[in-house]
Amino acid sequence: MKIALGQINPVVGDISGNVAKIIEFANQAKAEQARLIVFPELAICGYPPLDLIFKPSFVRSNREALDYLKSQVSGIAIIVGYVDVKSRSSRKLTNAAAFIDNNKIIGRQFKTLLPTYDVFDEARYFESADEYNVFTLDDVRFGISICEDIWYEREWQQQGYTCNPMARLNELNPNLIVNISASPYVVNKEYVRSDLVKAASEKFNMPVIYVNQVAGNDELIFDGRSFVADCAGKITMVGKPFEEDLKIVEFLPESKEFTSSFSLNYQLTPQENIYKALVLGLRDFAHKCGFTKATLGLSGGIDSAVVACLAADALGASNVLGVAMPSIYSSPHSLTDAKELAKNLNIDFKVIPIDSMMQESLANFKTHAFELKNQLTLENIQPRLRGLILMALANEFNYLVLNTGNKSEIACGYCTLYGDMVGGLAVIGDLLKTGVYELARFINVRQGKKIIPPNIITKRPSAELRENQFDDEALPPYPILDKIIGYYVEEHLTVSQIEELGYNIKLVTEVINLIDSSEFKRKQSAPTLKLSKRSFGSGRKMPIAYKTRYLLEELFMQESCKVH
Amino acid sequence: MKIALGQINPVVGDISGNVAKIIEFANQAKAEQARLIVFPELAICGYPPLDLIFKPSFVRSNREALDYLKSQVSGIAIIVGYVDVKSRSSRKLTNAAAFIDNNKIIGRQFKTLLPTYDVFDEARYFESADEYNVFTLDDVRFGISICEDIWYEREWQQQGYTCNPMARLNELNPNLIVNISASPYVVNKEYVRSDLVKAASEKFNMPVIYVNQVAGNDELIFDGRSFVADCAGKITMVGKPFEEDLKIVEFLPESKEFTSSFSLNYQLTPQENIYKALVLGLRDFAHKCGFTKATLGLSGGIDSAVVACLAADALGASNVLGVAMPSIYSSPHSLTDAKELAKNLNIDFKVIPIDSMMQESLANFKTHAFELKNQLTLENIQPRLRGLILMALANEFNYLVLNTGNKSEIACGYCTLYGDMVGGLAVIGDLLKTGVYELARFINVRQGKKIIPPNIITKRPSAELRENQFDDEALPPYPILDKIIGYYVEEHLTVSQIEELGYNIKLVTEVINLIDSSEFKRKQSAPTLKLSKRSFGSGRKMPIAYKTRYLLEELFMQESCKVH
Repeated sequence: MKIALGQINPVVGDISGNVAKIIEFANQAKAEQARLIVFPELAICGYPPLDLIFKPSFVRSNREALDYLKSQVSGIAIIVGYVDVKSRSSRKLTNAAAFIDNNKIIGRQFKTLLPTYDVFDEARYFESADEYNVFTLDDVRFGISICEDIWYEREWQQQGYTCNPMARLNELNPNLIVNISASPYVVNKEYVRSDLVKAASEKFNMPVIYVNQVAGNDELIFDGRSFVADCAGKITMVGKPFEEDLKIVEFLPESKEFTSSFSLNYQLTPQENIYKALVLGLRDFAHKCGFTKATLGLSGGIDSAVVACLAADALGASNVLGVAMPSIYSSPHSLTDAKELAKNLNIDFKVIPIDSMMQESLANFKTHAFELKNQLTLENIQPRLRGLILMALANEFNYLVLNTGNKSEIACGYCTLYGDMVGGLAVIGDLLKTGVYELARFINVRQGKKIIPPNIITKRPSAELRENQFDDEALPPYPILDKIIGYYVEEHLTVSQIEELGYNIKLVTEVINLIDSSEFKRKQSAPTLKLSKRSFGSGRKMPIAYKTRYLLEELFMQESCKVH
Repeated sequence: MKIALGQINPVVGDISGNVAKIIEFANQAKAEQARLIVFPELAICGYPPLDLIFKPSFVRSNREALDYLKSQVSGIAIIVGYVDVKSRSSRKLTNAAAFIDNNKIIGRQFKTLLPTYDVFDEARYFESADEYNVFTLDDVRFGISICEDIWYEREWQQQGYTCNPMARLNELNPNLIVNISASPYVVNKEYVRSDLVKAASEKFNMPVIYVNQVAGNDELIFDGRSFVADCAGKITMVGKPFEEDLKIVEFLPESKEFTSSFSLNYQLTPQENIYKALVLGLRDFAHKCGFTKATLGLSGGIDSAVVACLAADALGASNVLGVAMPSIYSSPHSLTDAKELAKNLNIDFKVIPIDSMMQESLANFKTHAFELKNQLTLENIQPRLRGLILMALANEFNYLVLNTGNKSEIACGYCTLYGDMVGGLAVIGDLLKTGVYELARFINVRQGKKIIPPNIITKRPSAELRENQFDDEALPPYPILDKIIGYYVEEHLTVSQIEELGYNIKLVTEVINLIDSSEFKRKQSAPTLKLSKRSFGSGRKMPIAYKTRYLLEELFMQESCKVH
């Protein structure tokens, strides 16, 4: 039997648009003689729909979409994810899959394992399955599992959870398991995912068809990469990373084998992965919000250079405006480097200096109130004027403002709220500064020419908010800082554990105090494209008004009161 | 037996500070001959600790705090909430209560019902109890339930959840149930809470001691109001609302009666509740973040007037700076009203006009790029300059900037990101505009004089960003608008359901489109003190890049694409 993998990019909430795409893919698969096509988790409504689920009309429309789908498609069976009620009389909702054939809904399978870690919040919305089904299509007997249901061994077993949906389905003696997923990308996730599906295939001697959503939906990037694994856990076919794809495999139910074998030429290097992930995330956010154009401040530094390259790729160079906003503290190279970058990328470029606005702001204060003298105040006014300029451009011409802050800055609060923190999307907010450098070098290699002027990559980083200001005077060197941020934010290590890894305890404590006391800034930051296992976003929920004073340990943190 | 209710205000994460307070309350109760003192849910670490829980040192410190507590207090038994591991070998965590007596931890009870609705996210952190215990202290046999555990009938039964922790405890034949809570305030919550505890008392013929946290912790306000209900469900004692309190009741275990009866004179009117809630929320946020002083823009309008009154009460008038920032579009009364208000409140007052900064901004654009012409651009620059001024004051003098936006504005996006939306805390962001008027009138009645100048209350609301601009020309009249927002945001009603209630369908659709398309602004708003059952905050999780195109219903919303 020919089975198609419908790796689509749904828009959250756009049920009519998603259904139209599902029909289009189904018809294309039918034209290629597929008997069944499989779509991702919640493909009808897009993942994650979040609190849209609480609108009764939203749930009703999910069910109506199924009815419409079954009436519109014939000659090919469909497995598709959607939101359903658990039973006619129940107000409990489920993350469901429907199996449709011959204009009928043959059956449903609900999701069992509802993730509540990281960015996931499914216990807020759904109830677990308590029934398992195997469906028959010609001579194929398949069970359906939904995303997390195949993660039992990795995430649930050691927590003492006893119901393994794969085992439950296996008891019903299927000859194929279909897993429909909406599994967001984080660095190396493709290997984690294929390892766990391979392990499940092997353990149950069961072939698995795994279909994943591809999309940028707010902070989350879904990389697609659907695949099939045979009984021995061998992966014989992989869907494209970071783009829509329709793949068809031939499945022999008696031998439980896949005969079609595609070349697995989609393996990407770490930098290729990050680059493609961010381009998809940026493009989808802009387009799904209705923007065709974006603007950003081009400081002549590495962060804005990288974001400009990503934006030019995602939206087209002619749809990107870079704005240099120099001040008296800007070095001459800042302007020339920014200009050269814009020229190399062929994006629009404007120079709007901020000096006169800065002078007028200070004079206005002096005339009507008092003279501003605090160095921090004087430094923060500059990025706030730049933010005002970018937002005026956004209002005037309907640009999406791209935020160019990196994860090291936002971790340490080395950024100005309502200043360089403005923007509708933080494109590289989950890339540490060292990662931004790696990505910059990759971009130049990828293009085969020095799109990003070498001086941008080699010069000493500076915020240029006063004379002779350099990042490495306010912060530890980035290679050290980034390691500490990783250990603390991503691994939850304590000060003493980080010290044991060879870092100076005073330095570690300073960095951690910076991180903890900057929570209020991150609370108001733009949505940040997620790349790491713990980004600053919905997967990290920290209080703002708190202290960390522990009784016995870490007493040196006693006065790390969270002052803005 | 004399039992004390230790209604304390813990600081999230400040384990050593909270333990010190617990010891202080325990010693005071002992001095008043209490045999037992009961503290709120997670009193050791404050509620909600959020992802602090994922730090292994945080969990360890919770357990160490218990050990310290048992060593420091004698002569009085303690029941207190904290975070624990489920078993020595487990990495599963629990929301736990410890029973301490005679320098020993006699026993523990874990929480069963883990809320995941609204602002709650406990399935992210905790595992449920599967054992229930009754403890003996002299001749009292008591069971412990934790917050949501007593909400079974209201929230869990109709969803088909079968384990009622109250029933499980009742099987063990206690003569008293202690419930330790951290139950946030929302309007009328005190009645909901006492009704459900009364119902549980009656159903099981069981007296209940209910101890609730009092605190402002970020967006959440906890109102205290601990109480005891006898077997017949009669409430015989209530703790103070919105402040710390130590109450002692005499309990007769044989008859299961409380002999002490306090006058229940803490009933507040709806406006008193809201006023006290916001004062507590503002004060705690400021102080727990380390601020003594706050500043805010005083426009001469009703919103900033109300916030100024709340701030003066919460922080002391001498710690509040009001700043009028008039432009050429400001009416003369805006300045005089703001000035009069500041004088009435006895707060500091400055006038810093924005005209010269506005002119310089426009001239700078014209000189270096082009002339800004779009009306929206010209309007938005003004609040952004005001935001810049307030943030400069904050940087210069360490003020907390108070955001003065109301819920009607933020719902409809009638506010400027990085402009009037700046601030560390949105004080009245969960009060609809009609509610702001009610609170303003209450404040004048409460003070027995016209603190808020009558002209501020009676004049026609205006953003004053261009000539002759009035809110009711851009938005429906507030009494209508606020009803629609309530139905849509708080009740999840559909357009047609709201229409059936007597509202014009075109108007409803316009308002809903405004609400949906303003999500990106709310994503970057300040933490908002929660008063209603659905505030804009962590209890409402909406996507940004989405469409709502449903197949059959609400087709008129087809193109409500979410454009910023």
